[in-house]
Order: sequence, then structure tokens, then C-alpha cells
Amino acid sequence: MPLDLTADVVALTAALVDIESVSGNEREIVDAIEAELSGLDHLTVTRIGNSLVARTDLGRPERVVVAGHVDTVPLNDNLPSRNDGTLLHGLGSCDMKGGVAVALKLAAGLPEPNRDVTYLFYECEEVDAARNGLKLIAEQRPELLKADFAILMEPSGAGVEAGCQGTLRVEVSTTGERAHSARSWRGVNAIHGAAEVLNRLAAYEARRPVIDGLEYHEGLNAVLINGGVATNVIPDRCTVTVNYRFAPDRTEAEALDFVRGFFDGFEVELTDSAPGALPGLDRPAAKAFVEAVGGEVGPKFGWTDVARFTVLGIPAVNYGPGDPTLAHKQEEHVPTEQIVRCESTLRDWLGG
Amino acid sequence: MPLDLTADVVALTAALVDIESVSGNEREIVDAIEAELSGLDHLTVTRIGNSLVARTDLGRPERVVVAGHVDTVPLNDNLPSRNDGTLLHGLGSCDMKGGVAVALKLAAGLPEPNRDVTYLFYECEEVDAARNGLKLIAEQRPELLKADFAILMEPSGAGVEAGCQGTLRVEVSTTGERAHSARSWRGVNAIHGAAEVLNRLAAYEARRPVIDGLEYHEGLNAVLINGGVATNVIPDRCTVTVNYRFAPDRTEAEALDFVRGFFDGFEVELTDSAPGALPGLDRPAAKAFVEAVGGEVGPKFGWTDVARFTVLGIPAVNYGPGDPTLAHKQEEHVPTEQIVRCESTLRDWLGG
Repeated sequence: MPLDLTADVVALTAALVDIESVSGNEREIVDAIEAELSGLDHLTVTRIGNSLVARTDLGRPERVVVAGHVDTVPLNDNLPSRNDGTLLHGLGSCDMKGGVAVALKLAAGLPEPNRDVTYLFYECEEVDAARNGLKLIAEQRPELLKADFAILMEPSGAGVEAGCQGTLRVEVSTTGERAHSARSWRGVNAIHGAAEVLNRLAAYEARRPVIDGLEYHEGLNAVLINGGVATNVIPDRCTVTVNYRFAPDRTEAEALDFVRGFFDGFEVELTDSAPGALPGLDRPAAKAFVEAVGGEVGPKFGWTDVARFTVLGIPAVNYGPGDPTLAHKQEEHVPTEQIVRCESTLRDWLGG
Repeated sequence: MPLDLTADVVALTAALVDIESVSGNEREIVDAIEAELSGLDHLTVTRIGNSLVARTDLGRPERVVVAGHVDTVPLNDNLPSRNDGTLLHGLGSCDMKGGVAVALKLAAGLPEPNRDVTYLFYECEEVDAARNGLKLIAEQRPELLKADFAILMEPSGAGVEAGCQGTLRVEVSTTGERAHSARSWRGVNAIHGAAEVLNRLAAYEARRPVIDGLEYHEGLNAVLINGGVATNVIPDRCTVTVNYRFAPDRTEAEALDFVRGFFDGFEVELTDSAPGALPGLDRPAAKAFVEAVGGEVGPKFGWTDVARFTVLGIPAVNYGPGDPTLAHKQEEHVPTEQIVRCESTLRDWLGG
């Protein structure tokens, strides 16, 4: 069934939710979006894999990106959608087809926005970074992403969340010497040796730096621990996987330095790292957007693709309907009022 | 090829090593032993599965068991046997076909020992207790095991090792509350909660009680640790598997009480338990044997089937050729001199 972009934004969200689009399976939903947008004279549509870029080209002095990923985490007995009058329930309702519906309504219904707009609908945000549609466009067609400001329509409770914290993971390992556990004094127990690693973590006090008026909140946590050979052997290795979420006033290199210092005396191996993004609220485009939306601006704790825009030199914020803490939950849902409000706010800001 | 029980004991050990008999695959070696022993008038041979009981029945006032398991741990590129003139190398050479060869030489060559002897050759000592041949005989034909004293020919460096330590395993668990690691303060980290478990283990001081003149040496060790859900989730559970090796002055119940008290405040679940065995050196049969063998008596740290005899009310010792710390190693071997010495000592003690 084709999408009806003239329907109200809540009905459009429900229609998008009802097209299953778990990461890797976005063809159908992107086909449906492409079918509607490619027929519109005011948009130039480019398809890259299962991602779409739809641009106005009105020669405006400012260009903004409005972006959303079309994929979801795996099914969890939460389709089709259900609208109870206040909340729209279903997989992807919160993360983030409400935001995608808003972007589609604007793309179709605003032929002459006061700023040129680059709409992005992209694949594979919920899986390995290597498959991320936004990353692939940035690598293959970076000219399509040029802009002064970007709005990523990730759920943020219909408020502006600026910047995002970085994240890195290290493996902190201890070593020992194997021995039969019947003669344990002949070995050195690497699991016992990890006590100090856990003691330091348990005593950690989080930094909470204020940046552009926003208070971030770091976190340093063991997320996995593994050690041991067999139930009758003194273990010679124990590995603690530690996740550091760091405020965007630290670079990845500074964050890693901190972690290495924190675990001084232990073997520390970096396994994964992604930078944070500064709020960028001092940039004129961002300032104007925040003023238009009104309300409090909050910091983004979780990592989002906002950081990818920052790397491209484009200030970006999260702004979309839905409670971010419901993302990836079986019971995810979105307040219909927030979808409507986000559409209305953005429409006003774009001069509609 | 049939076994030649008239060959010297080292050649017989080599022949036994060259019949592969990994646990569960003992048929061939037991067939070969049965073929030789069942032809001897002075022995009554009973087969139970792939275990053999061969008894003299001379009406002697005292009866002793001489026992050995015929299985080995898995192959590790260490067959066939190789005799370098001093050491016999190969899978099972140390654990424990040298001892089995000694028992076979005595069984065949001593038609009229000064004590009645029950020779045991049994299967599946190296695997789950449920399959252990000695356990199965004790359950199915306990009358075959009645005796005043038992010699288990496990490797003990050709010295007497008395008693054995008990062993139990518990899982010590901590719990917490899951949360996304980007908002870690909303959760409770169960891995950090395990720091105190490891602190107590690292600070543990081993008991070293002296029993019948033998100094035991306990051990309390984390052998496995596991925790975590995913690399972006605050973990809600962490489990430390702890192995307690306890001296034979403690019962299994006392040992468990100690461990529960040690980890007071944590969830402790018993997963495995086996009793120790007191040295029993005050029993006349044991005393006489120790005097006959001469040399120092040592404590047995590792758990062996000696404990099964103790449960049956039969004092028992380990006495066999080979270094017990080489058992289960790829490079296991046995000094040929020790095999010869064990045979000679036992032959003398049995009045040969």
C-alpha cells in the first residue's frame, strides 16, 4: 500500500511503523518513501543503497539537514501499531518513525521553505557503524550533506538535546599463573588480581562538566567480566570490559588517556571508540533553532549520529518526538501530541 | 596382541600405555586384562561393565584392596609410549598405567599372598563421578569391596600419601539493576558489586592443619568469573565460581558452613561437593603398610578415589609410581625405577 503523505502526521507514523524495517530490511519502506518524494517537482531525490537524500534547491542563503533513520531494532512481538488515543505503540514508534513522519510531512508539504532543506532517510543506524547509511553517504557523496545546521530527529521528548557524549570501550586484563586448584599456592590467581580493577571502578566519581550551559554526566562502568580456565584450575587471565561515556569537552584521545591513567598498572586495550559532539549552541543556525523551538535545552547522554555531523563540521541537535529511554524496549511508544508539536514547530521555523 | 604378564613391569606398563583407553573406551584394555587373569586358578574374576574385580580367597585373616583405574584423559599427541632408558613417556604412563602394571604383576605372580587381595581395575575415573567404575561396583556389588585396607595406585612418587583433601564449589553471585550505560546512574552495577567478593578472596589465608602428623594446605579460589549483558548495558548479575579445597578434618557440611560465612551477605549456591578422607594412619593395616614401605608419609592435596574407600569404612592410601603433578599433561611420563620399586615393595609386603 502506498504511503499517503497528505494524511495527518500521526496516521503517517502508524503507516510507517506498520512497514517492518528491521536493520537490513529497509528496502520496502525506502521504496515507499521514494515513490512519493520522487514525484515532487521541488525535490531532487538521490538513492544510495537503502538511503534517500531529498533536497530543495531554492538558492536560500542557509541550508539545513533534517534527518532520520528508517530502520528499527529486531521485532519483539510489537507490531502492528496501536493508537490508544494518546500514545501510538509499536516497534519503531519512538525510535524513530515519529520523527521520520514529521520529516516526510515537511518534505512533501513545504515546496518553498525559507531555508533550503536536505531531507535524509537512512538505513542501518541500529547496527554496526560500518553499515550506517549516514556514514556511507558521507563517504560516497559528501557534497550531498553540505549544510549550516542539522536536526537529527531522534527521540528527545520533543525538546532540543544538544551535543552528545562520546563512548569508548577498553579491555582491562590481569594475568597470573595456572596451577591445579588442589595446589593453588603454586599458581597466581588472575581473578583475585582483578579485585583492584573493580575497587577502582566502584570508587569512581563521575565528572559532570557544564558546557554551553548544559550539564553532562559521565560514566565509567564494567559491562562484562570474564575469567577462568576450568573449575579445578587457578586462572591465569581475567578481562574486564569497561565502557567510558565521556562528556564532549574531551576528545577520544583525552578520554583514552584518562582511562589508561585510571587503570594504571594494568593492561588496557582499546576495543571501540566514538567521539562526543559539542553542543555547538554558539553557532547562529543552532541559536536560531533553539529560539524558535523554545523551552529548555538538555544535554544528550547517549551517543547519536549527531556526532557524525559534528565530525563533518555541521552543528547538529537531536530534536524529535518520544522518550529516548523507551527506545529498544518491547513496549516502546510515542505520545501523539509530541509528533504533532514537532511537525508544527518545524513547519513554523521553515516558514510554512 | 595379548598382554604378557610374565614380561618385566616396565615392558608391561608400555604395553598398557599402547592400548589407548580414553575414558569410555576401556573395552579393549579390560578385555586384554580379563583374558589373562580369568585363566588363573588362584583368582575369582568378576566383570562389571568395563571394570574387573579379581580376588584371592585363601581365608587369610586380613584382606587388602589394590586398585587402579584403566582410563586416561584424552589423547594429546602422546601415543605410543617411548622409553628413553630412565623415563617411560606417553599418555597414561604416569596416571596411572605404571600402577596398573604393578597390580597386574602381583595378581598374576603371587598365587599365595600372605593377605587376601582384591585387585580392582576400573573404568571412567577421569570423567563424571556418575560413570566412575569404583562407584558403580560399590553400588552394585559392595560385598566385593570388603577389606581392611586399600592401596590406590595413583601416582605419588612411589611414596605413601595418606588421606585427601575434600573439594566443593559454590557460585557466589551479586545482583544489580540494568540500565543503558549512557545513563549508568540509573542502574546498579553487579560487576562493581563483586569487588568485595574478590577482596575477601585475595585476603584469604589458608588453613594448614596437621592431622596424624601430616600438614594439609587448604585453598579458596575463584576459578571462573562471569558477568554482563552487553557492552552498552549496566550488568545486573555477576557470578564468581569458587573452589574450596579443604583438609579432611572438616566434613562437607562444615566446609560449606565456612564458605557461607566467608561470603556472608552474598548469594552462595553449592554446585559440587566431595568429602575429604582422613589419613587413617592409626589403623593397624595402614600402620603396617607404612612401616613396610618406609620413608616419609605425605598428605594428599588433590582429591582421589581414596575418599570413596573412606566412605566405605576402609582406610586407604595413595601409593604408586609417577609425579602426580605430571598427570593430565601432554608430556606425562614415569620414572621406570619407581615402577620397579613399587612392584618390589608390594611384593615383599604381600610375602612374595
